Amino acid sequence: MTHKRIRIGMVGGGDGAFIGAVHRIATRIDDGYELVAGALSSNPDRALNSARRLGINDERSYPSFSVMAKQEKKRKDGIQAVIIVTPNHMHYPVAKAFLEQGIHVICDKPVTKDLNEALELKALVEKSGAFFALTHNYTGYPLVRHAKHLVDSDVLGKLRVIQVEYAQDWLTEQAESTDNKQAQWRTDPEKSGMAGCLGDIGTHAFNLACFISGQKVQHVSADLTAFVSGRRLDDNVHTMLRFDGGAKGMLWSSQVAPGNENGLRIRLYGEKAGIEWSQESPNELWLSILGEPTQKITRAGHGAGEEANRLSRVPAGHPEGYLEGFANLYVDIALAIHAIEDGADVRSVQGLIPSIDDGVEGMKFITAVLASSAHDSAWHPL
Amino acid sequence: MTHKRIRIGMVGGGDGAFIGAVHRIATRIDDGYELVAGALSSNPDRALNSARRLGINDERSYPSFSVMAKQEKKRKDGIQAVIIVTPNHMHYPVAKAFLEQGIHVICDKPVTKDLNEALELKALVEKSGAFFALTHNYTGYPLVRHAKHLVDSDVLGKLRVIQVEYAQDWLTEQAESTDNKQAQWRTDPEKSGMAGCLGDIGTHAFNLACFISGQKVQHVSADLTAFVSGRRLDDNVHTMLRFDGGAKGMLWSSQVAPGNENGLRIRLYGEKAGIEWSQESPNELWLSILGEPTQKITRAGHGAGEEANRLSRVPAGHPEGYLEGFANLYVDIALAIHAIEDGADVRSVQGLIPSIDDGVEGMKFITAVLASSAHDSAWHPL
Amino acid sequence: MTHKRIRIGMVGGGDGAFIGAVHRIATRIDDGYELVAGALSSNPDRALNSARRLGINDERSYPSFSVMAKQEKKRKDGIQAVIIVTPNHMHYPVAKAFLEQGIHVICDKPVTKDLNEALELKALVEKSGAFFALTHNYTGYPLVRHAKHLVDSDVLGKLRVIQVEYAQDWLTEQAESTDNKQAQWRTDPEKSGMAGCLGDIGTHAFNLACFISGQKVQHVSADLTAFVSGRRLDDNVHTMLRFDGGAKGMLWSSQVAPGNENGLRIRLYGEKAGIEWSQESPNELWLSILGEPTQKITRAGHGAGEEANRLSRVPAGHPEGYLEGFANLYVDIALAIHAIEDGADVRSVQGLIPSIDDGVEGMKFITAVLASSAHDSAWHPL
Amino acid sequence: MTHKRIRIGMVGGGDGAFIGAVHRIATRIDDGYELVAGALSSNPDRALNSARRLGINDERSYPSFSVMAKQEKKRKDGIQAVIIVTPNHMHYPVAKAFLEQGIHVICDKPVTKDLNEALELKALVEKSGAFFALTHNYTGYPLVRHAKHLVDSDVLGKLRVIQVEYAQDWLTEQAESTDNKQAQWRTDPEKSGMAGCLGDIGTHAFNLACFISGQKVQHVSADLTAFVSGRRLDDNVHTMLRFDGGAKGMLWSSQVAPGNENGLRIRLYGEKAGIEWSQESPNELWLSILGEPTQKITRAGHGAGEEANRLSRVPAGHPEGYLEGFANLYVDIALAIHAIEDGADVRSVQGLIPSIDDGVEGMKFITAVLASSAHDSAWHPL
Repeated sequence: MTHKRIRIGMVGGGDGAFIGAVHRIATRIDDGYELVAGALSSNPDRALNSARRLGINDERSYPSFSVMAKQEKKRKDGIQAVIIVTPNHMHYPVAKAFLEQGIHVICDKPVTKDLNEALELKALVEKSGAFFALTHNYTGYPLVRHAKHLVDSDVLGKLRVIQVEYAQDWLTEQAESTDNKQAQWRTDPEKSGMAGCLGDIGTHAFNLACFISGQKVQHVSADLTAFVSGRRLDDNVHTMLRFDGGAKGMLWSSQVAPGNENGLRIRLYGEKAGIEWSQESPNELWLSILGEPTQKITRAGHGAGEEANRLSRVPAGHPEGYLEGFANLYVDIALAIHAIEDGADVRSVQGLIPSIDDGVEGMKFITAVLASSAHDSAWHPL
Repeated sequence: MTHKRIRIGMVGGGDGAFIGAVHRIATRIDDGYELVAGALSSNPDRALNSARRLGINDERSYPSFSVMAKQEKKRKDGIQAVIIVTPNHMHYPVAKAFLEQGIHVICDKPVTKDLNEALELKALVEKSGAFFALTHNYTGYPLVRHAKHLVDSDVLGKLRVIQVEYAQDWLTEQAESTDNKQAQWRTDPEKSGMAGCLGDIGTHAFNLACFISGQKVQHVSADLTAFVSGRRLDDNVHTMLRFDGGAKGMLWSSQVAPGNENGLRIRLYGEKAGIEWSQESPNELWLSILGEPTQKITRAGHGAGEEANRLSRVPAGHPEGYLEGFANLYVDIALAIHAIEDGADVRSVQGLIPSIDDGVEGMKFITAVLASSAHDSAWHPL
Repeated sequence: MTHKRIRIGMVGGGDGAFIGAVHRIATRIDDGYELVAGALSSNPDRALNSARRLGINDERSYPSFSVMAKQEKKRKDGIQAVIIVTPNHMHYPVAKAFLEQGIHVICDKPVTKDLNEALELKALVEKSGAFFALTHNYTGYPLVRHAKHLVDSDVLGKLRVIQVEYAQDWLTEQAESTDNKQAQWRTDPEKSGMAGCLGDIGTHAFNLACFISGQKVQHVSADLTAFVSGRRLDDNVHTMLRFDGGAKGMLWSSQVAPGNENGLRIRLYGEKAGIEWSQESPNELWLSILGEPTQKITRAGHGAGEEANRLSRVPAGHPEGYLEGFANLYVDIALAIHAIEDGADVRSVQGLIPSIDDGVEGMKFITAVLASSAHDSAWHPL
Repeated sequence: MTHKRIRIGMVGGGDGAFIGAVHRIATRIDDGYELVAGALSSNPDRALNSARRLGINDERSYPSFSVMAKQEKKRKDGIQAVIIVTPNHMHYPVAKAFLEQGIHVICDKPVTKDLNEALELKALVEKSGAFFALTHNYTGYPLVRHAKHLVDSDVLGKLRVIQVEYAQDWLTEQAESTDNKQAQWRTDPEKSGMAGCLGDIGTHAFNLACFISGQKVQHVSADLTAFVSGRRLDDNVHTMLRFDGGAKGMLWSSQVAPGNENGLRIRLYGEKAGIEWSQESPNELWLSILGEPTQKITRAGHGAGEEANRLSRVPAGHPEGYLEGFANLYVDIALAIHAIEDGADVRSVQGLIPSIDDGVEGMKFITAVLASSAHDSAWHPL
């Protein structure tokens, strides 16, 4: 079989941005993609310079995403998919522009600014027939996949308790009043939507809990806080959860917890066993079968299943990390896109890839949490 | 100075009991006490046999606690203090009997069956002038004391977030229907009161959070569950907390979380630093000052303060554990009792020792959590 | 059965000493002993004051160990055993004095100043018929016993590699030129013998490797160093080992390794499995059966065997530490002494208790290491 | 600046190989290279198929490395550098062929089959003027660079003790008699040279110790073993080390230690501080300054220096692993090659990149260890 890279473009991700570079590395690791076009910045100079640095031809470095969508559609060698790595409020219009041209969309999270946009986007995706992936990247870690497998294959038994958290410390002080660009837009309701920490990392924790458990959150009771003086969006999220399968849980998310870098951690307990996984030590999954010693399952090591091994590049004991986990999403997205181009139905190939439905769920979660917190933590349905 | 051991008696703690043996070891470690009397069991044979095994003279092995209280009061060499290690529902009548004789009381937690009893007991303590200690033993760990010191001395700055949890797995299955005596009484409302996991270990987590933070919980929003079929008391506790000093928190307590043995763990985050401590690794305290690498402070090691060192027996790197932490309470209780016998006012010497007030707070917590959970998690004041 | 405490005396261990207090706590934890006599210091005032503080009657606080041995022998209620916690050079004469009176001896390690003394002591022990225990206390940790059990029951298969180490940092600087009494005698050849770090902690590592593996070291190749300027005894030990059962190993011991408190750690690898244990986390034993996930076995938890459970006082997850491990030796010593007093042969009851033979082995090890290091690390037999 | 990828070719690394794929990922992560030619297998079919799968044009998929060297030299768009990922015995002839054409060489370790070849290769490199890099990839981990920085900037003070180890378990059984290709050639003296575990992973441990300490090993005392029946090369390495700067150390390397995956771990102790790093947790470096609490320095976190940050792609708490560490070598190799093409002297740009000199040192180490082990562990100079 000859090697065929998927032609991609990118919107956002110019010099100075963070997550765009991460996506680019993730696409390169397994050599399944080729970046050939971009509208990398709303600033034309930065857009062009960034494109040159990335080896994109000048003629395919576009001043605007809408021009890009139309022009690329016309080319025989036009992009097959676009990666959207703008601030949150731009996700919807950009995705719309490309979906309307039938170009597949790979979009960073949270999917949109609010639930209405998410529902509209869902309609657009369905109408377009194009493929839409949401990069809840933590689902790409091999041992997260294995955790899901353990739940799915009933090793844990009926789930009872799900404890999930995502703690950081980088907004402990008022970073948004410095020149920290990341802090500025993430604490600005115009660009982030109504959720701060909740949207930025709380949704990752939420998505991870749903992904592994296979359950949906039905109700939330939430207490949001903006601890830092003058901050306009929440920087700490306390939530109790009730899942549709009968499990109960807690979700804590914070950006004001000194000593936490990217403390995404999940624990699930069922009638027969419990598991624990932490993003900062992603090559280990702890499995405690009731009445037996706790097992340390390592990525690609003994006890890791087929799905974890499929997504491993190097042997156990050689750590894979965040970028490889991200790349795993792109591995599966490439499989999906190739399948589609070979004529398969788009919905049949999504498999484990976070979808527009997951995006909608995330926005429902945000909406419900905001509502519960506004009503003195009364339980609110999603 | 000649060595003077404090003469103690014990109610409960006969053969087959668990916590009584722990108290006895704790009293022996530093040689500050002498066990000379007991009403070790409501079963007279067991009481006598247990007493003999412990080197208590037959004449001071009593068939009932009320006889014991009166007889010991009459002796010149009568006990100075009694240790109460019965099931919860007996704490109140036993404590009452000894307080009325002016004998100091050292009582296991939770202090009573319910809040009313606790308030009555508080009145009795105050009236008696005797000393009353509640063995929330986790406050005795040297690095818990140091954690409190770090908060008190403003190393953390104003506290914002407090995450505390206590997870076990020994009630994952229906152990109360086996011959497990510990499981039987702890899941029986007649003996435990209305709180199961909540009273047994949730109160420890609650007490620890208050002890270290120096703040009181003002409101709780709680969701209690009895996951195991047929169980009459809660086995999982989800609670959001609001403290009087402005901090917010979460408390999770569970006895159905496979893989957890005694997972009592606390994290506190302030404006300037965060700390983390886990009971299963009690010789380490993690201190993260914002902008600096996290420090691993070890018991009796570099960075541990005077209070932690005062309560350490062996050098850093030689682990001290649960029994030593428990013994530390007894060290301080001995100091208090000696001070009292030297004429000091009882209230002036209690210092860091959990008191009847802490017992009342614990019962208020239980009461409020039960109320909140019964009202769909509405915030409830303590 | 009525409780019968063993009457003990102590030589050494007066105010300011370290290990004497440890032994006393260890004897108290399980209430099997009663300290009734002592020659606690060569300084008469300190001896008397120390004794009073410990509740020893003045008449049984002796100015010299030889007087003590004779006087105690004469009493009906004389001590049944003596605990020797002097500096190393006094172990032999003190042990001799008590053995000659037929009094059991419990001696701190290393057993004597040199191999000759150890061999003479062995002859004395055999002649006396009294019981002799050497407090290599790390063998008392429940999971060390379980590790030995795993090896003995062939879970590991034929042993191949044994890596053991004991690292500290308290002699990184020239502490012996300060008023640090512990540092002074431990670096003084007159009091410590010819081995510094080697005798103080290297012998613990050596003993632990032999205890768990059940193998004897046949040859050593060693490289000793005194890194600190002016130090008269080694402060770092590098040794390669060859065991009589075919295993090979390395032993590293150091007192100049900043960041190490009491880093005693052992790993054993056989044809079928490997195990790992660290003294600073003594409640965990890691078992890796080839082809399976590594298991975390906890003290008193799932996977811990009968021997480990026999020596546990509190449930899994409530850490036991150094003092409890030490106390476990005293539990077994008490069993031995009671058995002897009931007429059993002394040799039949020693079981797992480190003996004079272990002491001799330790001195052979020291001697061989010194010889190898003096001969440019040539392999030297024990 | 326009993006200019370095054109590379690869020898070895066809389907079924392991390390070739790792190199390719490492070159792609930061987009500094373009793979355009290869002689990927000695089997012509496999070579061609592998090349096609990698997107190499058929005309640049060569049946032999010597043809490749000559043909590529002739092309205007010929490769600038070749990556050699064959078994060890082929490193020398392949490197020679490309160096003679003035093509830069990036070679996997160990550098050659034996010391003679290494010395000849060194002469060839010097004569050619081309750039030669040896992929001791563990030196590319950001916190390894920071560890070196801490030593270089005297944070540790004069080094005393260096403990390094690399343990695996994959050769615990006789894997070479199965169809495990990796096991077959690594245990075959014809393909691996005279060193088994010693050459495969012992050299990594050796190189890491030298890299961080900045010291050279002067003498070794070694004890090699082949534990597995019938194995022709060592599978366990015990070595004591003496460094030219006065430090002493131990190196343990094993492939028969069940439970170890890639347990490369190093600890360095100086007069003022100690550090510890483990390859399986590469995002943490532990720094213990004498008299202070141990610090946990995280990659890109507080306390990590400029060099570590230069080589980090994602924020602290998002783990980077083995592939990123490997890619860091390629980042620096790209800087070197670009500098050379811009006319800089090749020697001036090597900086921190392992060189032919490191390769020679590694072969000297292997030679000396083999000699020492053959002479009953007598100290042998390098």
